[in-house]
Order: sequence, then C-alpha cells, then structure tokens
Amino acid sequence: MTDQPRQLKLNAFLHDTGHHEASWRHPDSSADRVGDISWYQELARKAEAAKLDAVFLADGPAHYGTGYRPSTQFEPITFLTALATATERIGLIATASTTFYEPYNLARLFGSLDRISGGRAGWNIVTTFSEDAAHNFGLTGVPSNEERYGRAEEFVEVVTRLWDSWEDDAEVVDKAAGVFADQARIHRIDHVGRHLRVRGPFNAPRSPQGRPVYVQAGSSNEGRAFAARNAEAIFTAHQTLGNAQAFYADIKAQARTFGRNPDHVLVLPGISPFIGDTPAEAKALYDEFNELTVAAYGVSQLEKIAGVSLGHLELDEAVPVSLFGGAGNVLDNNRSRKQVVANIVERDRPTLRQLLHRLAGGRGHNVVHGTPVQVADTIQEWFEGGAADGFNVMPPLYPQLLDAFTSKVVPILQDRGLFRTDYTGTTLREHYGLPRPGSLYAGTAAATA
Amino acid sequence: MTDQPRQLKLNAFLHDTGHHEASWRHPDSSADRVGDISWYQELARKAEAAKLDAVFLADGPAHYGTGYRPSTQFEPITFLTALATATERIGLIATASTTFYEPYNLARLFGSLDRISGGRAGWNIVTTFSEDAAHNFGLTGVPSNEERYGRAEEFVEVVTRLWDSWEDDAEVVDKAAGVFADQARIHRIDHVGRHLRVRGPFNAPRSPQGRPVYVQAGSSNEGRAFAARNAEAIFTAHQTLGNAQAFYADIKAQARTFGRNPDHVLVLPGISPFIGDTPAEAKALYDEFNELTVAAYGVSQLEKIAGVSLGHLELDEAVPVSLFGGAGNVLDNNRSRKQVVANIVERDRPTLRQLLHRLAGGRGHNVVHGTPVQVADTIQEWFEGGAADGFNVMPPLYPQLLDAFTSKVVPILQDRGLFRTDYTGTTLREHYGLPRPGSLYAGTAAATA
Repeated sequence: MTDQPRQLKLNAFLHDTGHHEASWRHPDSSADRVGDISWYQELARKAEAAKLDAVFLADGPAHYGTGYRPSTQFEPITFLTALATATERIGLIATASTTFYEPYNLARLFGSLDRISGGRAGWNIVTTFSEDAAHNFGLTGVPSNEERYGRAEEFVEVVTRLWDSWEDDAEVVDKAAGVFADQARIHRIDHVGRHLRVRGPFNAPRSPQGRPVYVQAGSSNEGRAFAARNAEAIFTAHQTLGNAQAFYADIKAQARTFGRNPDHVLVLPGISPFIGDTPAEAKALYDEFNELTVAAYGVSQLEKIAGVSLGHLELDEAVPVSLFGGAGNVLDNNRSRKQVVANIVERDRPTLRQLLHRLAGGRGHNVVHGTPVQVADTIQEWFEGGAADGFNVMPPLYPQLLDAFTSKVVPILQDRGLFRTDYTGTTLREHYGLPRPGSLYAGTAAATA
Repeated sequence: MTDQPRQLKLNAFLHDTGHHEASWRHPDSSADRVGDISWYQELARKAEAAKLDAVFLADGPAHYGTGYRPSTQFEPITFLTALATATERIGLIATASTTFYEPYNLARLFGSLDRISGGRAGWNIVTTFSEDAAHNFGLTGVPSNEERYGRAEEFVEVVTRLWDSWEDDAEVVDKAAGVFADQARIHRIDHVGRHLRVRGPFNAPRSPQGRPVYVQAGSSNEGRAFAARNAEAIFTAHQTLGNAQAFYADIKAQARTFGRNPDHVLVLPGISPFIGDTPAEAKALYDEFNELTVAAYGVSQLEKIAGVSLGHLELDEAVPVSLFGGAGNVLDNNRSRKQVVANIVERDRPTLRQLLHRLAGGRGHNVVHGTPVQVADTIQEWFEGGAADGFNVMPPLYPQLLDAFTSKVVPILQDRGLFRTDYTGTTLREHYGLPRPGSLYAGTAAATA
C-alpha cells in the first residue's frame, strides 16, 4: 500500500537491568539504578540514537516480587512521560489494563502523554490475568476471559469515542469574538453498555495522533480475536519460525475478515539476543547468565504457569509432558504463556534445569545467541518468511546488550535495506506506517448540550 | 517547633493563560500556547527561579467547557511529570479525586511522580462535587457528601498504607546472595472496608518523601474535618481577613483535637494580584480585564453556583440576597463556593455586573489590585494576623503578572525576612517544613506471604 520498501519495526522493551531474570546479578549490571528514572532516560536516548521505533514497558498493577529480582515498578504512563521529555522522536508504548482502569481516567493519561510527546504514545491494551491484581481492586478473583474481553471491547469503544469527541478543528481561539472553542464540534459520547456508562465529552482537544497507537499482547483465542479487531501492533511470543508463521497468518486473515488492512496490524514477536563476536562467545555469554539464575525463583515462576507444585522434580529430571496438561487442556485454559511452555516441553523434552534456563532469558519469548550476522539473519528470515513485521527487542542486559544490538546488528539490517537509517516522521504512527485516524464525529452536526 | 523564623509558603497556581476568566482575550495573552506543554514548563521554571514552594494544578475529570474560555485540560499527573523533568527544586501539586480513582492506580501515579521528581509531589485530595464528572464514571449523579467523604477517608487510609507497605530499607540488592529485596519488609495491607477492598502490597519502593504531601481544598464542614485530620496543606478561598482568620483558627483547633501539630497543617488562601506601579495603574489593569469578560459566560458560571436561573436579572440590577438561599440553606448545602458568593452578596450588595467582575478574577478567591508594597502589605497582614501560613498565588495573566509578582513583590517579602532567598531543601516536605513520615510498618515482624 506504499511506495516504500517494507521495513522492519523495532522496539526496545525496557525491563530493569535487562530481560534475563539473573541480569541484575551480573557483575556489570546496573542493579543500583533500577529505581532511577535517569537510567531509563539514558536507555531511551540510546534506542532513539539507533532510530528504533519505540520503547515499550510491560505492567501489572500488583506486587509480583519474590525478593529474587528487581520488582520495583514505575507507573508506566508517568514513566514514559519522563522519557518523552528526554527524547524527541522515539515512540513510547505503555501497558494499561482495561479491567482495572476507568476509561475516562485512562483516556486522559494516554491523551496527555500523546500531547506531551508530540504524538508518540502507544497503548498496550491488556485485560490482566492476575489474582494479585484483582485483590488490589476490590475483587476476590480474576473475572472470566469472557467478562474481561467483553469489558475490553466496550472500553476500547469508549476511549476511542472520547479521543474523537473533540473534532480536530474544535478550537477556534477567536479573541475578538470571545469564542475559544466551537461547542458544536465537541461531542458527548453517551455510551451505555453492559460494563460501562460514560457520557463525555472528553476534556481535552484531539491529540497529535488522533488516538494513541493501539497495541495488544495476548495470544489466547479471545486475545487474538480482540487484536485482529482492534490492535495496530501485536506483541507476541514464539519460540519457532513455524509457530510464528501460523500466528502471523491467523492474525492477518482475521484482520481481513473484519475489513481491516492487514498491513495496519503489525505482528512483532519478542526476541532476546545474546550477541558475541563468534558463535562460541555468544553461547558462553548465554551460559554465563543462566549460571547466575536462582533455581527457587525459576521454579516459583514455572509453578505459576503450570498451576501445580514442582517440588517433587529434581533439577536434572526430565519434565513430564503431562505437567502442562496436554494441548487440549491448554487451549481450554486460554493462557498463552502456558501454551508456549507446553510446546517447548513436548518438542524438546528438557530437564527441569534446561527448561528453567530456556525461560530465564525471556519468560517464553525467543532467546537467541549468535554473532551479529546470525542474529540479523534470524530477524531477516522471520521478517521475509511471513512470521514478523518487526520485533520487540529484549536485551538480556541493559545497556550492554542493547548497545551490541544497535551498534552491530542494526547496521547490518540497514545495509540490507531492512531498517531505516533515519526517522522520516515525528509520530509513532508515522514510524509504524499507520494512518492517523479521523474523528468518528468529524462533520456530524449534533452539538453537545 | 523550629529555630528558623516562620516564613511564608508561596505556590504558583497554574491555569492556562491566567486566572482571570478573560485573560486569554487580552492582547498580550498566550492563548495559542495553552495546549503546549513547553508553555507550562517555562512558567514552572520562572516560579522556581523565584524560589516558590510549588506549582499547583486544579482538576476535574469532565469537560466543563462553554466555548467562552480555554477548556483544554492536561491530565494533571502526567502534566506535572513533564514539569518535574524541566525543574529541579520546586514542588509539584496535582489534584485527583478519591471518588473517581481506584486507590491502587492513584497510589502508583503519585508514587511514581514523587520518585521521578526526587521527592517533590503533592496530592490535592478532592471528592469532586460534579454532575458532569459523575456521568463520566458510570453514575447518574454525584454521591452524597457523606458517601464521598466516607470513601475519601478510607481512600487516604488505603493509599497511605500502600505507600508505607515497603519499609524504607526493603531493598537490599545483594548480588552475591541473589536477594534483591527483603520480602519480610514488604507488607500486605489487607484493607477491607465499607467502600474499598485492597490487599497490597504496593509494587514499588517507598518514594523519597515517604508519601506525597497531602493537600486539601474543600471548605464544607465535612471538608474542614477531613482536612484537619488528613491534610498537611489546605487551599482555601476567602475574601476578607476576618473570614480567613476564623477559618484558620478553626482548622488549627480541629487539628489539635486530632492530636496533630497545627504547624504541620498549613493554611494557604488564594490571592490573585493585579500589580501596578501606582494604585491607579493597578486599578486600571483590573478594570481592563473585567471589560474583556463575556457576561453570558459569567452568568452561566454563577447559575451553576446558585443552582437557579439568573435570566431575569439585568446586569445593572442589584443581586437579591435571597438568591443564594440565606446562610442557613447554604450551610445545609455544604457547598463552600456558594458560601463565599453569599457572603459577598450579603456584605457588599453588588449589582449583577459587579458580582460577575468580582468572581471573574478568581472564581471566589481574593482578587486584589495595588502596588507591589500594597500587595506585600496585604500578604504580611494575613500572614502575621493569624489568617494564612502562605498563599496560593493566582496570577491573572501568565506570565506577565507572575513576573510582576516574582520580580516586585517577592523581593519585598524577602527584604522583610518573610520569604526564603534560596531553597534550603530538595523536597516539597522540606520547603513546607513538614516532617518525612516513617512507614507505619517500620519494624513490624509480619512478612507478606
């Protein structure tokens, strides 16, 4: 749909000292800076210097700490606001939950981030499958998938209408006439649904992007359908090219059935690269990090995914395939992370220790080790092989393995014509090749009371 | 309780082009910049250069626009985060509603602002008496004062415990042992109340100030009692020294009955100064702004306060005292702004036009006009006369009348020893002379599960 050759979209997924769970224990880690906003501002500036599309921040509104690794969380939207003021071009994607936010508050926070950043905000829309979070919001358990995604659909409808409720030309600023805004172009939304009642209008003009970029990260059946209807970028976890290709084809096909342009639904798998000048050096780096893991932590995380105790297993014992319930149960459960682990166990039959190491790097995302050329080859293979429109890059250790990626892998991708050598736009929509949506209310006559 | 002489606390209350409702129409106004974050960053830097204590932002989660004046609102916490990164010392006070926020979300936003700003956050706690806001949050009307303040008390209890749930020394960062945080010093709060159920723990370490400074701005009976129990600074609107003295004495007395140190409950009335080199010049400036007002706008605002139509009144007709219901009805209604207007009408018997002009400058706050010495004299009189610990300064036009205040009035106050000539601390608590509270959980043995 464009004259430009198709190019990779690359985000830097920020995560305390790095994505490897033991990265903070590494002698070179910046464990003392994980609570320091200037640390993340520096990382964002590095990602921007490499012309990456965006930085991304995951989130859950609960304390998931075990004591074994950093669990200090910034609130994502204030965090990205602080990064917005330290950068000029890079996109800023924050995670926020439709289950635990009021839509009017969330619309204000992201609308404000989009204005403050000059049009660089993205919203990673999650429904938050977390008992710990539910207990922080007056609930005694997680609402069902049906309930959460039902609210999420309504929530997206509501915030879309709020962001659209001021037409783009609503502010007239006529000092002589004493008219600042044309009220006829500021609209109530009058939403009354099963989960939400919101009248509007919004209390701010339309933001530079019209709406923040809609991002989604769940891979359950409900998650995929929701993404195909609503998301403009999808973060996803795949361990193999084949799985990623199947996911990619499914999402693009579903998007078409909703009448959407599949080029405007970007699929961005996670990739966590250990980069060395030789294959052996990269493998040694990978092993070095895994040796720093604390097995008790990995087991506790795996038990959460499995939903059963693993206390009876020895570290060097093979993990029983039955532990993750077989494919049928997994699909019923609709928990995408469990599916990823089940696939690893069924395919590779690892010992518990091997499985813990496989998950230590990227919590189910694709952890690779290799030379810059090998990493670039993998990226190109997925990009050209119908598996990815780009990647959510998850450096195992910040900043060293971000630096290795940007200084060694990115130039190869640029030489191959697969990645930009400079920004051509100023907004995240422009970086991602997504159109700026007009207001749903543009040109309508009805005025708010 | 300190060896320092008592000094004024002075905030700059930010408000688009200025606090006078017609300020945006003034030929010198920056009406084209009210949606531009850099405009407010510049104002905050000016306030900081003058060593003011804080900038302050009012808020309501609804569109209150009439078209007659700027109604573009930034979300306050992201807004102040952007100002935090543009300044180093000045405090940052944002308004947020206990009625329309979830406490876990609000605790995260303000906790994050306090960390990003290095301990400069303040939370202006409001319960939001607004039909328009209620309709944006699933309600069909404003909850009763009893209901709103009941939730507010529980809300403050919950967020206080969340902010305290990590003891100050919970993070140990022991790379060798693989222990990042001591889980025994991170506590669930297990709150189960009439309005809220929140388990905790919080998901971030204690912020630099321990807790943001608690600010309050309601003057109803419930508001005063709430403030006396919880607030560390109170913003209030008084037109006369006598009324301000009565309020001040009442708040300090109530604080004592709750066992609090009255010096840690600062009373800060609003003041909106038109400053001229001569009294006549200042009066002419005041008149110039009032001539720019649009009567239809002022009438619509006054009708909201009165709760009745004013369509039958001519501009030059005296406002009937009965219109604001008499003192008895006003107290029943508990709406403090109506009380302020009722007092003006009963005392001064203005025409409608005169009343509109009285309210145009500060929406019920004290609008003064005079030379720098006259303004400084008024401030000193209130400060030394038991009416104020400082002021929320509301320049009628930004930046010109902030500049006039900081360049002409502040030096007089400094010469008189009433205001600092430089910051002595780095946090808002330090500027305000408030102690940093210890964690409620400090030294308790119980660990979270």
